[in-house]
Amino acid sequence: MSYDIAVIPGDGIGNEVVEAVEPLLVDVAAAHGVDVSTTWFDWGSQRYLDEGALMPDDGLDRLESFDAILLGAVGHPDVPDHVTLRGLRLPITKGFNQHVCKRPSYLFEGVDSPLKGYTDGDIDLVVYRQNTEGEYADVGGREHRGFENEVAVQASVFTREATEAVVRPAFEAASERDGKLTNVTKSNAQAHSMVFWDDIVEEVSEEYPDVEVERLLVDAASMDFVRRPDEFDVVVASNLFGDILTDIGGIISGSLGLAPSTNINPDRTYPSMFEPVHGSAFDIMGEGVANPLATVLSGALMFDHLGEDAVADALHDAVAAQLADNDAPRTADIGGSAATVDVTDELTERLI
Amino acid sequence: MSYDIAVIPGDGIGNEVVEAVEPLLVDVAAAHGVDVSTTWFDWGSQRYLDEGALMPDDGLDRLESFDAILLGAVGHPDVPDHVTLRGLRLPITKGFNQHVCKRPSYLFEGVDSPLKGYTDGDIDLVVYRQNTEGEYADVGGREHRGFENEVAVQASVFTREATEAVVRPAFEAASERDGKLTNVTKSNAQAHSMVFWDDIVEEVSEEYPDVEVERLLVDAASMDFVRRPDEFDVVVASNLFGDILTDIGGIISGSLGLAPSTNINPDRTYPSMFEPVHGSAFDIMGEGVANPLATVLSGALMFDHLGEDAVADALHDAVAAQLADNDAPRTADIGGSAATVDVTDELTERLI
Ligand SMILES: CC(C)[C@H](C(=O)O)[C@@H](O)C(=O)O
Ligand SMILES: CC(C)[C@H](C(=O)O)[C@@H](O)C(=O)O
Repeated sequence: MSYDIAVIPGDGIGNEVVEAVEPLLVDVAAAHGVDVSTTWFDWGSQRYLDEGALMPDDGLDRLESFDAILLGAVGHPDVPDHVTLRGLRLPITKGFNQHVCKRPSYLFEGVDSPLKGYTDGDIDLVVYRQNTEGEYADVGGREHRGFENEVAVQASVFTREATEAVVRPAFEAASERDGKLTNVTKSNAQAHSMVFWDDIVEEVSEEYPDVEVERLLVDAASMDFVRRPDEFDVVVASNLFGDILTDIGGIISGSLGLAPSTNINPDRTYPSMFEPVHGSAFDIMGEGVANPLATVLSGALMFDHLGEDAVADALHDAVAAQLADNDAPRTADIGGSAATVDVTDELTERLI
Repeated sequence: MSYDIAVIPGDGIGNEVVEAVEPLLVDVAAAHGVDVSTTWFDWGSQRYLDEGALMPDDGLDRLESFDAILLGAVGHPDVPDHVTLRGLRLPITKGFNQHVCKRPSYLFEGVDSPLKGYTDGDIDLVVYRQNTEGEYADVGGREHRGFENEVAVQASVFTREATEAVVRPAFEAASERDGKLTNVTKSNAQAHSMVFWDDIVEEVSEEYPDVEVERLLVDAASMDFVRRPDEFDVVVASNLFGDILTDIGGIISGSLGLAPSTNINPDRTYPSMFEPVHGSAFDIMGEGVANPLATVLSGALMFDHLGEDAVADALHDAVAAQLADNDAPRTADIGGSAATVDVTDELTERLI
């Protein structure tokens, strides 16, 4: 098989990890008889600073024919965060109906969790995060009602279609894994949106009688990711709650530098997008020390999505073996002092 | 001085901890020459199940003349969470302009954090949570737009007045403590409400040139409560984000069973309310094993608010001494097997 992949390195360390990882992905695929060709797009904050837009007006049209998109990171100290979000990630995730953000948290052997010594260290969960609406709907306004009481309103919008689009794959996954789904909402305080969400989860659950559903409020869930992370299997949550939970999931499994992410268009009419969870990290930009493994694991999830299981498994297993090997180079975020390219060089050797 | 305190034990273990702690608070106050008289209200979910309302229509009128309110917990398996919230806590916090929910997270000597062995164990932070609006505004609706696209909308409402009402005390506290304030928002994804919030924080910061302000997104902040909890001092956040962060704050400092909470009316025109962070915990109800210390510490914060520092300090110091004492009784949530009353009996002995 052959695939055309759009590559958007973006900002900051996004460039460093994507540049280090892209050749590895192409070569490993080739070693498995899978032909990958990549097209690079220099979209991101620098383009915004130079030309006034993070991507061109016809950006989605240019991306649409690709089989998948590999993204580095977007975010720049000189550009407000909401400008970068509205200028690139939101248009792509919303425009391509990438309703599902699937993010595994997995504690690899050889990696220290801050919870080491407290849990058994058995963290292997996956969060299905709604990815196109909810608290990110970007609806609202700000009004002056006299000096004393200026008001801002931010509306979350939840549709049945886009909610079902993430709830159903979460049940699918739970039924293939341990048969347990944790549904995270805040139905006590946000009864309009979250009771709606709970109702949909309950309806869909009838199609999956083998899956046991646990309900948790987001505050309790955030606490329980620390208190009893080994008890979670599949978690389904809104856009904002999924965002929060997956950052906690990242740190309890050692580092955001190991956390991959996917933005999946469930009906496959559009390309899906794969990226590390970490951001552009300008504080370490240019030093060549960013952890490339989150991007490698995102690549593995990309091949998994494309149906190239052998490539996906090879990548995942090589990362696991390298992390378990105390003598292998590792970056500072997981206790080493190696450079980004040392890690990908070693991984390439293991793989090819 | 003498004080009239309204006591609402509420549901589940709320009753158990309040019954165990109230006499202790009254006696310790008396030992310091402070006269406390309490009036009990049997409001809560049982009243709702029997009579259709958690509290009477004139509930606020009945509470208004008290100097403070001590609440146990509200929540019942047979009553939807949003019914209990709208039926008691929201009317009180909103009705009495209790804009500030101040919640310390403090890791006592003798208590194990799940992060033990990872951090130095030096956790001493306080969250100022907006308590009357924001994501809890309870504005929204649900609409059918044909079967395929039913929609629910939940609006967050932020006013300048109620935002300043929590931001200013947070700066006050930061300027009295370590001079560092962490402002937690999600301005990238919720630009309407959160940029407004950020603007207010920036404006108020001009009055406190001695306070250094750090900005964090809520996902990063949730992660950093685990990654580097010792670096936080004063944190200011919206209603929802404060809710999430204080549950994480509770677990990293050992247990929600040690986490106190306050609902403060900053201009003191109405009574403030004090309560443990933990809920009604029906799973352990009736066993007499709930940790009473969160309620004791909430009582300490109550006396602190009333200006009775000697009583507040005595309570806090006795809790600290008892937790540091390996031979003292402790409840199951912090590794012991003692009953609720064993803990309060021992504490009474230490104090009187
Ligand atoms: C960059 C930001 C908008 C994004 C999000 O909140 O979705 C990030 O935190 C993530 O988790 O991918
Ligand atoms: C009971 C619930 C409504 C409440 C909240 O979300 O505020 C609780 O979680 C808390 O933190 O006190």
